[in-house]
Amino acid sequence: MEVFRDIDSLGNYLSAHRCQGRSTGLVPTMGALHQGHLSLLSNALEENDIVICSVYVNPTQFNNAEDLENYPRQEAEDLRILEQNGCHAVFVPDDEIMYVEDPVIRIGFGDMEGIMEGEFRPGHFNGVAMVVAKLLNAVNPDRAYFGQKDLQQFLLIERMVKDLGFRTKLRCIPIYREETGLAMSSRNLRLSQEEKNRAVNIYKMLSRSAKMLESGERWEEVHKEGINFLRENGLEPEYFEAVSAQTLARQTNVFDKNRVALCVAAYVGKIRLIDNLILGGSL
Amino acid sequence: MEVFRDIDSLGNYLSAHRCQGRSTGLVPTMGALHQGHLSLLSNALEENDIVICSVYVNPTQFNNAEDLENYPRQEAEDLRILEQNGCHAVFVPDDEIMYVEDPVIRIGFGDMEGIMEGEFRPGHFNGVAMVVAKLLNAVNPDRAYFGQKDLQQFLLIERMVKDLGFRTKLRCIPIYREETGLAMSSRNLRLSQEEKNRAVNIYKMLSRSAKMLESGERWEEVHKEGINFLRENGLEPEYFEAVSAQTLARQTNVFDKNRVALCVAAYVGKIRLIDNLILGGSL
Repeated sequence: MEVFRDIDSLGNYLSAHRCQGRSTGLVPTMGALHQGHLSLLSNALEENDIVICSVYVNPTQFNNAEDLENYPRQEAEDLRILEQNGCHAVFVPDDEIMYVEDPVIRIGFGDMEGIMEGEFRPGHFNGVAMVVAKLLNAVNPDRAYFGQKDLQQFLLIERMVKDLGFRTKLRCIPIYREETGLAMSSRNLRLSQEEKNRAVNIYKMLSRSAKMLESGERWEEVHKEGINFLRENGLEPEYFEAVSAQTLARQTNVFDKNRVALCVAAYVGKIRLIDNLILGGSL
Repeated sequence: MEVFRDIDSLGNYLSAHRCQGRSTGLVPTMGALHQGHLSLLSNALEENDIVICSVYVNPTQFNNAEDLENYPRQEAEDLRILEQNGCHAVFVPDDEIMYVEDPVIRIGFGDMEGIMEGEFRPGHFNGVAMVVAKLLNAVNPDRAYFGQKDLQQFLLIERMVKDLGFRTKLRCIPIYREETGLAMSSRNLRLSQEEKNRAVNIYKMLSRSAKMLESGERWEEVHKEGINFLRENGLEPEYFEAVSAQTLARQTNVFDKNRVALCVAAYVGKIRLIDNLILGGSL
């Protein structure tokens, strides 16, 4: 596996492959790799001749300095995992490579970022957009792979890719869950066993809510019960929304023809987790 | 000369050249080509193996529907001029190719767009950023050529290219002027001879102002005299600013170590013209 720490040598490596007619896939990650990431990697390996993972904890998407500082970092372990799982190349830039100067421009997503992560993490998606644009420009891949766990992120990136005309095709890969139902997340590394036991109630709540909606219960009732369920199980919900899985518009009638996603953010102690469930299956 | 109307065939043509080790230069234009554009083209031909011009009147950068409607269009003539001047390929997309869907994202430039064109043409630079990003993604050139006449545009695009990590190097080519001093502009086609005679006073004012500043006159005085000079000569000034030719910050001390640009917008009848002069020469 090739390891690149600067953009030019990465670009030369990829140009050479492209000019030999090989397709390229990008799996952008912030490291602390888990089965969810490996599921993106295996999808990328199936569809592309050459797969490159990036491992970079992007500071501009953290609205909370403590969260940035405590975000798990394990580069040597991540490289070992990627090599073992057949990744061809890895891009491990540092902040000086990715942000030569402090950025001035801001990318806004209008109503699409007025709710959920956009509402509760001001500036988050501007930082995400910036780093994804930089990665797409550095790698110029045929396809890029994102996880459905960050559903709003995926839909916003998809929008940016369309609006700015990036040639990369995007793939949204279903959420990978532990046996308990807990969605895989690098932040799970920061949970105690007792907190993990509580955290499984996030997915339990989503599943219960989906069943209630499918049996005809009104959203207002489902929302109230969902919030109560989380609180009763020692979690502190931040939001619980039913939105279009295309436009992110709030859905009051969940039997609308647009796919509806139930999205939740909740604190387990000091750790903030998100999860979602799309009624009728994945994207 | 090759003529491309869709992005995929353009991309294939350029990939083939790139894979043969040829460098590529992009000259983005809105058509109605004049000597100013040809000066960009000749610079591009000197520095690159393959030069592609784009000819596209981008609707999203017009804040005024009448201006968009009346913007001169002469595609057949433009293609003839480009072929005669050694251009290798031209990209002539239509709105359906460039804007498959209405854009949602917005690119903001903070203080850099709080003055001059950004102040008087709301939304203008968002539209410029969008179309330039689309062109850079479609062409992926080694170098792209812009005119100094649109100085604020150049500096904002340079900022976007840095912040989003586009690999293209940008060139700012000095303003090409008619013998009278009038800056070449496609909008000059819409001036009567009498209006052209009045319009030459824009550059006269810039030159006078530069001399006054160089001989130690205060900016406030130079500004007042400049505005009066334009009005006395039948022009309606919209702004006249002294700004840093790097950051676009207003400069009160023009002998600052930053290069200072004098920038002006003025109406000649219904036609709005812009011009600028950088103290100490071009960028």
